[in-house]
Amino acid sequence: MGSDNEQEWLDTRFDELWPITRSITGPGFRKSLEILQQDIPLEIQSVPSGTEVFDWEIPPEWRVHEAKLTGPEGEVYADLNETNLAVVNYSEPVDKHLTLNELDPHLYTLPDLPEATPYVTSYYERNWGFCLPHTVYESLPEGEYHAHIDSELDEDGELNYAHTVLEGESDREILLSTYLCHPSLANNELSGPLVMASLYNRIAAWDNRKFTYRFVILPETIGSLTYLSEYGRHLQDNLVAGLVLTCLGGPEETLSYKETRREDALIDEVVRHIDDYMDQDIQFRRFDTKGSDERQYCSPGFNLPVGQFARTPYGEYDGYHNSLDTKEFMGIKSLVESAEGIEQVLKTIEYGGYYLNQEPYGEPMMSKRDLYPTVNNPDEYDGRDLVRTMMRILNYSDGTRPTVKIAERYEMPVEDLRVAIEQLCHTGLLEPMSHTPDYNNHHES
Amino acid sequence: MGSDNEQEWLDTRFDELWPITRSITGPGFRKSLEILQQDIPLEIQSVPSGTEVFDWEIPPEWRVHEAKLTGPEGEVYADLNETNLAVVNYSEPVDKHLTLNELDPHLYTLPDLPEATPYVTSYYERNWGFCLPHTVYESLPEGEYHAHIDSELDEDGELNYAHTVLEGESDREILLSTYLCHPSLANNELSGPLVMASLYNRIAAWDNRKFTYRFVILPETIGSLTYLSEYGRHLQDNLVAGLVLTCLGGPEETLSYKETRREDALIDEVVRHIDDYMDQDIQFRRFDTKGSDERQYCSPGFNLPVGQFARTPYGEYDGYHNSLDTKEFMGIKSLVESAEGIEQVLKTIEYGGYYLNQEPYGEPMMSKRDLYPTVNNPDEYDGRDLVRTMMRILNYSDGTRPTVKIAERYEMPVEDLRVAIEQLCHTGLLEPMSHTPDYNNHHES
Amino acid sequence: MGSDNEQEWLDTRFDELWPITRSITGPGFRKSLEILQQDIPLEIQSVPSGTEVFDWEIPPEWRVHEAKLTGPEGEVYADLNETNLAVVNYSEPVDKHLTLNELDPHLYTLPDLPEATPYVTSYYERNWGFCLPHTVYESLPEGEYHAHIDSELDEDGELNYAHTVLEGESDREILLSTYLCHPSLANNELSGPLVMASLYNRIAAWDNRKFTYRFVILPETIGSLTYLSEYGRHLQDNLVAGLVLTCLGGPEETLSYKETRREDALIDEVVRHIDDYMDQDIQFRRFDTKGSDERQYCSPGFNLPVGQFARTPYGEYDGYHNSLDTKEFMGIKSLVESAEGIEQVLKTIEYGGYYLNQEPYGEPMMSKRDLYPTVNNPDEYDGRDLVRTMMRILNYSDGTRPTVKIAERYEMPVEDLRVAIEQLCHTGLLEPMSHTPDYNNHHES
Repeated sequence: MGSDNEQEWLDTRFDELWPITRSITGPGFRKSLEILQQDIPLEIQSVPSGTEVFDWEIPPEWRVHEAKLTGPEGEVYADLNETNLAVVNYSEPVDKHLTLNELDPHLYTLPDLPEATPYVTSYYERNWGFCLPHTVYESLPEGEYHAHIDSELDEDGELNYAHTVLEGESDREILLSTYLCHPSLANNELSGPLVMASLYNRIAAWDNRKFTYRFVILPETIGSLTYLSEYGRHLQDNLVAGLVLTCLGGPEETLSYKETRREDALIDEVVRHIDDYMDQDIQFRRFDTKGSDERQYCSPGFNLPVGQFARTPYGEYDGYHNSLDTKEFMGIKSLVESAEGIEQVLKTIEYGGYYLNQEPYGEPMMSKRDLYPTVNNPDEYDGRDLVRTMMRILNYSDGTRPTVKIAERYEMPVEDLRVAIEQLCHTGLLEPMSHTPDYNNHHES
Repeated sequence: MGSDNEQEWLDTRFDELWPITRSITGPGFRKSLEILQQDIPLEIQSVPSGTEVFDWEIPPEWRVHEAKLTGPEGEVYADLNETNLAVVNYSEPVDKHLTLNELDPHLYTLPDLPEATPYVTSYYERNWGFCLPHTVYESLPEGEYHAHIDSELDEDGELNYAHTVLEGESDREILLSTYLCHPSLANNELSGPLVMASLYNRIAAWDNRKFTYRFVILPETIGSLTYLSEYGRHLQDNLVAGLVLTCLGGPEETLSYKETRREDALIDEVVRHIDDYMDQDIQFRRFDTKGSDERQYCSPGFNLPVGQFARTPYGEYDGYHNSLDTKEFMGIKSLVESAEGIEQVLKTIEYGGYYLNQEPYGEPMMSKRDLYPTVNNPDEYDGRDLVRTMMRILNYSDGTRPTVKIAERYEMPVEDLRVAIEQLCHTGLLEPMSHTPDYNNHHES
Repeated sequence: MGSDNEQEWLDTRFDELWPITRSITGPGFRKSLEILQQDIPLEIQSVPSGTEVFDWEIPPEWRVHEAKLTGPEGEVYADLNETNLAVVNYSEPVDKHLTLNELDPHLYTLPDLPEATPYVTSYYERNWGFCLPHTVYESLPEGEYHAHIDSELDEDGELNYAHTVLEGESDREILLSTYLCHPSLANNELSGPLVMASLYNRIAAWDNRKFTYRFVILPETIGSLTYLSEYGRHLQDNLVAGLVLTCLGGPEETLSYKETRREDALIDEVVRHIDDYMDQDIQFRRFDTKGSDERQYCSPGFNLPVGQFARTPYGEYDGYHNSLDTKEFMGIKSLVESAEGIEQVLKTIEYGGYYLNQEPYGEPMMSKRDLYPTVNNPDEYDGRDLVRTMMRILNYSDGTRPTVKIAERYEMPVEDLRVAIEQLCHTGLLEPMSHTPDYNNHHES
């Protein structure tokens, strides 16, 4: 699909998703997943409220029907119908008449960005409130206000997540994970699922896939905890690499990669290799416990090889978690560029990883496989470079060095090994390793 | 106790210990331990002469009652009553009349420091001799001399050492070891036991101790060998860190740390961290086989994580092993400063070591423990820095990284993690590791 | 034996070996081994053609009796009687009359070196051909040519190799391997076996050998594969270090060392140590799959600690694999210098390796072995440096550090440890390690 078509498609999808009142649970989240099912064959799962996930418990399901703050003169100062940000997410129901003084602890503004409405949540402590621009807040007259929030916190509700798998030659997996719980935020919400939709379609169109690709969309934090409680062991057994997708739009020129907690996982090596040897510049951030769902995937008990890609990361732009995080700020074109950059990373992981030489005792005989010029004639150097590359790959493919590192030993991009790797796999001299020893030692420990 | 009081106390104790005729065995050594029992509740142990300790054998117990070298005119040139250094330590008994020529092989001087009397020992080869200033030696007249040493080498004697333990929350131990065998030397003898007395009283006064502290005073070399033959396995099983205390007075401005043989033991990391990130400058020496009892603790069969602290180390000052090593050279004030510096190191080990996150699967839920602001309101950043510090500590406390290294990852002094560590331990989210895997693998090897 | 005598001897041997028509199999190879038996007590072995060795099969034995290319006027353009290079090595028999056009695919020249005759082989693909200078090739007239090669490819033939062992105190081995299959090439053929002859006689003359030395002469590639199929397991169990000898003459001033695949094997450390701390400068090449028989010894299934020494390496001089590779280019004197340089390396491995302290608990008591001054007298420093060196060696000889690394810790050449090592071995305090753990872990893997 052409880039123009792709932009048009993502633009349409953005507009469908933007107005929905989403939270970490509830009908808005489910509705959003259904919209994305047009692009990714997502299987939607549910887990009951109250379920314990590690140190946490899935909260009641939140549904909100109306939220309106009316002033003494009947003027409406905050209204869910105007913006999803107007109400504190997970507000309990309220229907009260209060003085401005009594109301004040329930009002949230951003004094430093006086025109912006903040995005505020209170998932795990019962609370209610309204968010509004600081300019409006400062103009509020004295008098009696009516705070009305028609919401439910259903203990018999559920949490939802969705996933699907694109199978490859190996059942070893690459994880792509993003979240979909913030309503009416663009860069720090819809950019992730939309880039995932693009990546799903790109990867599905590849001629072949060495690895199996797992696509996961969930509510941030509690969703990835829930997913790990169900699939954590599976991921420990099968994961080659993973990426959390977040904040993939905005004005930054290059992708920004947050390293895994391990710092030397294959995905880290591949992204560094691309930045050092190939045609994509990438910014790097070290692992830290501030961030998105990689905080859960990279918790010490799992320590999965999961990095994160962003373009204009959380906390580094004014519109973070407020009404300035718009479609215009994000830019649909940025999303397409992000998908292209991440696709290059994934393609490079496909052949940049660990292989095993199947004839490790002595050199394999290349000529009987038509891989070597049979006459040792110094005037006939056709094919010699390719053979030399194959011999190097065979020698170092002992399970301890990915091809990306073999390439670096010879100061070349791993792209230049690709034809040789494919020919060697074709003849059976080389086989992808089904397991990399490093990531899967939890059985022993 | 105030620093002035401490100086006074150590000064008094110095004067009690100085005149005693000590050696590696015998009544002087025992008497000295009894004096120190005023400050440390030392348990005094004995091991019979002749006992084999590894490649060595405990020598006979030496007692000396009189040692005097009288000249042809009755002039006394060396006299144990004048200075303990006058007689070669472990001299066998002698009562002979000799010419100056016959006497000469038994006289020891320092030609480069002609006014100083050397300190000479001969523990393992039977010998006798006198030590005197080179100026006196050069003025000796011809004639008949009377060499009289009234000493015993008792095969039925014993070697003594003394130790005590200050218990902590964990039975994992910190070892402080010093020696007490040189008579009438200040920096290279009494500085060690006196700093240990100070440290004992300081540590006993701490509000709490994470570790158990073991204080050991012994004769150098043969004493630590004997101690290892009895407690070596115990130390291999329990030792977190150890320090040999020696030469802790003198004019140097900073403490001087000799690294463990491992070079990367926790104690090494902590001392480097203090020098790099905290308010104490420290000199460093690499491990070498020249030194004090760390030579035994760090022999390859034990390889214990034992470093050494000195201020003006052996071999780096004129008075080393001779009569210039006086109380004035050493300075009581230096000892107090040494104790303060070492106390800081020990305090830092208390919280700078290995902890284990007790909820390693996913992030722990901080808000249910009142450790996290429950409303995600960008305007309320109180307590956020503390929470971020706690999340970082939790994520990296997987048993492979001490908190001192976690602090360095964020380029901050480990002091700044202390409140967070204590809160996390208080809630049970973090627990000190009872064993660090590194030092205790002798069972497998 | 003096250096002049050695040059004379090697010169004579060169002239005997040069004219023989050698290949990887056949009577010329056997004849050459017999000539070398004058200098090395080689045991000659045979393996039948058709034997499978790993991924390869031993080819038929090649014998060639006559090879002549005659022109239209009866002029002889290529003749085995003139030079061994005239015929493509392993040519099948042919007796044909052809036009110049039909003949052309069977003619090999070097357009860039128009006066030189190339060396061409076709061991594993049936083919025939003639090699000639490009100037001759360009002058060939049209007309009918007679290509006559009287050769056999005997399926019932054999491959030969030869080896011998010089026993040492330990049955742990040092391997020296070279090849002998190129006819009438000097630097890239006879230099290797002749340097080996020199080394055999030098090592045989040593006062003692710690290690056992294995000398192997074989046809390149298929010979080392065959050797590994018979002795690979033995080498995995016993090899301390190995060297392939190739291209050891020519104008370069220093030896050139190609590192082992491991890069940190003892032999690598020793050669680097000599270059850094001792009186021989050495050039270094990283391991690569271009090269000689180290490609087989260092294949990932064996990964033996085998490096390679050359002086003017293959591919780095015009005469590589053509008639310019003459005795004059190679130079007999260069061979003697190469043997001297390699002998220094081997001598250094003898005492530069792994030892085990036999009294690892505490310091050994040196004085009871007469290794230590018994009177601690500062005026008597004779022997102190030696004792300090011994204490350092003992402390670090725990099986993880070769003495070459202990020397580097103290920034001194390992030569300076030699006396101490010998004294310690003499008293039994130190013993050479019979196995280095690193190289012999194939049983577990």
